[in-house]
Amino acid sequence: MKIVIIVGDGMGDRPLAELGNKTPLEAARKPSLNRLAENGICGTIDIISPGIPPGSDVAHLALLGYDAEQVYSGRGAFEAIGFGVDVLPDDVAFRCNFATVDPELKVIDRRAGRIATIDAAGLAEGLQEIALQDHQNVQIMFNNTIQHRAILLLRGAHLSPMVSDSDPHQVGTNVSKVRPLDNSDEAEKTARILNELTSHFHRVLKNHPLNITRETAGLFPANIVLCRGAGRLPDLTPLSLRYGINAVAISAMPLVNGVCKAAGMKLVNVPGSTGTYDTNLLAKARAAVEALHACDLVFVHVKATDVASHDGRVDEKVRMIQKIDQLVEYVTRNVDLTQTYVAVTADHTTSSRTGEHEGDPVPVVLSGPEVRTDDVKEFSERACAKGGLGRIRGRQFLPIIMDLLGRTKKFGA
Amino acid sequence: MKIVIIVGDGMGDRPLAELGNKTPLEAARKPSLNRLAENGICGTIDIISPGIPPGSDVAHLALLGYDAEQVYSGRGAFEAIGFGVDVLPDDVAFRCNFATVDPELKVIDRRAGRIATIDAAGLAEGLQEIALQDHQNVQIMFNNTIQHRAILLLRGAHLSPMVSDSDPHQVGTNVSKVRPLDNSDEAEKTARILNELTSHFHRVLKNHPLNITRETAGLFPANIVLCRGAGRLPDLTPLSLRYGINAVAISAMPLVNGVCKAAGMKLVNVPGSTGTYDTNLLAKARAAVEALHACDLVFVHVKATDVASHDGRVDEKVRMIQKIDQLVEYVTRNVDLTQTYVAVTADHTTSSRTGEHEGDPVPVVLSGPEVRTDDVKEFSERACAKGGLGRIRGRQFLPIIMDLLGRTKKFGA
Repeated sequence: MKIVIIVGDGMGDRPLAELGNKTPLEAARKPSLNRLAENGICGTIDIISPGIPPGSDVAHLALLGYDAEQVYSGRGAFEAIGFGVDVLPDDVAFRCNFATVDPELKVIDRRAGRIATIDAAGLAEGLQEIALQDHQNVQIMFNNTIQHRAILLLRGAHLSPMVSDSDPHQVGTNVSKVRPLDNSDEAEKTARILNELTSHFHRVLKNHPLNITRETAGLFPANIVLCRGAGRLPDLTPLSLRYGINAVAISAMPLVNGVCKAAGMKLVNVPGSTGTYDTNLLAKARAAVEALHACDLVFVHVKATDVASHDGRVDEKVRMIQKIDQLVEYVTRNVDLTQTYVAVTADHTTSSRTGEHEGDPVPVVLSGPEVRTDDVKEFSERACAKGGLGRIRGRQFLPIIMDLLGRTKKFGA
Repeated sequence: MKIVIIVGDGMGDRPLAELGNKTPLEAARKPSLNRLAENGICGTIDIISPGIPPGSDVAHLALLGYDAEQVYSGRGAFEAIGFGVDVLPDDVAFRCNFATVDPELKVIDRRAGRIATIDAAGLAEGLQEIALQDHQNVQIMFNNTIQHRAILLLRGAHLSPMVSDSDPHQVGTNVSKVRPLDNSDEAEKTARILNELTSHFHRVLKNHPLNITRETAGLFPANIVLCRGAGRLPDLTPLSLRYGINAVAISAMPLVNGVCKAAGMKLVNVPGSTGTYDTNLLAKARAAVEALHACDLVFVHVKATDVASHDGRVDEKVRMIQKIDQLVEYVTRNVDLTQTYVAVTADHTTSSRTGEHEGDPVPVVLSGPEVRTDDVKEFSERACAKGGLGRIRGRQFLPIIMDLLGRTKKFGA
């Protein structure tokens, strides 16, 4: 028995006036998702607990069966390993943005005009040769990834992830001074390093020829690096050890890939999978079916539903859900349904009105041999709330599946 | 106000192809259970948590309101006290089987051909005079119970239940060497004793005249004792103290009786209650009604539904559910329903296909004065999932009942 899990990032939503009080899921044409609901068991999931909006990292930890409240220690390390950067147990990693500030360090653009990856790479080169006078035992590694995105890694003794962000998270505000978040010497030292690095990066970047060229061309100069999400890599028992399964993840998002990798899953990179509206979900569907031959669990993550919500693009969200429906159709037509379970859910609700992650539960459907079907015939937030699974928590999702796959161990005699 | 709780062991199941995609509960004729559902409030119970298959001991701890994850410390001690063997707080108890091994200690039959109790008693006599050279301060008590079943008790200082089983749990495999499960001296010592005892028992049994007679008669010789489920007795606050009630348990199964006794319940032995298909459930029903005169809670446990599932006997499972329906009918006709609640549930799901305990939730109905009834009119897994109780946890079941009985205390002011 095998399972394909399909997660639409931020796919859950609230009823929207512009959709006649329907949610994007309710408004979308989705015959395959509805068929899955009709043949399966449905419910809703509070990813962490009711009313708590989860980030995508925490949400994926939960959906993979981990107790996020216990194991989560910041976003940075997931971003890093998701992008292919090696992270050692004591390293502290940060997710960074190339950004634009004015001479008083007020943030003008948090993404330096979504700087092209090639420009960011050029700038990142200038940030490689860093030696801090006061912290010569701390190794500093800086990698740009896609567009404005980058990763900063600190390696050395006596560091701590308990520090605040230099990213003020909104334009028109000054770059934040990094503060220690507890009373430890380690946090104090790490904050000091971050502040020193921020000044250093700014000094190098503001006079960089590439930025001068950008300014001449009317583009935002990427003259600062904003850091956030300080994190260590949690020590997760891999799914292979917990359940004796081989698991594969298909996602375009380094953060999600990082969580999956930390769970011991193999990452499959699919050309054409972009994390944006133009993503090729059929390519992902094909890759999922292909991967299933050699493993027990394939996890397919689609980012663009969330992007649409953050952008307030209800039309794009509906369209992306319809693309996910086609992905589901391809998968259900091309796997042996007598030997394969298919589950679809979201990692959180994102309101297309507020553009924020919200704490509403997400719908879930689980279809396959011997599931206790219910009366639900539509895959949506409100329809699934009447389903046979009831209202479960994120970290209960995988054990339910593993039990159907015969992978759980009895507790007691 | 009083309550009768009826538990069908392993009564929950999954939809089965041979029943036209119904579960045994759905397929059974069960007018009394359905009437209870119609007049009561229904729901489903995750005995421990979603997807986790519980053993019967853990499951009964949960149904009696205890936090099994906190208090459970192995099966052995429950088996022992359930059979009437006194267990002191520091004793380590094991559930044992008389079994058959070949000369290389490969297990041929884990139950010595389900040896008759009288033969097992004769063999057990030969195992009474045990003195271990190296462990003269450890007292060893061995009791056969029913057929191949037996109990081993170790009493003395510096023992530990953190040891593995000598029972390999499958035929064709060698008897397992007992290993310590933690780094303590106590576990190391206990494992050594168990290994020494296993050899000693084998030496005595293989030449025992009774076994020679059995072999001559073409029966499996009971030439080894396999041990499993090392356990100490947990220190449970009895129901009388927690809720001020007198509680009685009616079960044919030593393990369940042990848990009930550990919870301070009185055990009532009912002649004709056998734990197998021929059990006299009407006798149990009569005993329950009788017991209710002098107590507040009667707990009736029926084992054979689980036996049928383990045997893959779907027909017997359906028949046993119909017998439970008659038990329910007798109870509801013979108690004062204005003063008595009746609840029916299962301790876990057992799949008649896999023959294993599964992690699916079990259905529950609770009927009696002032319950908030719902629309459910059938007692089954899928019907109860639509009930007003929703999806609860095993250890929440008894508090809900105790609250209706006016036995709970307010938390706060």
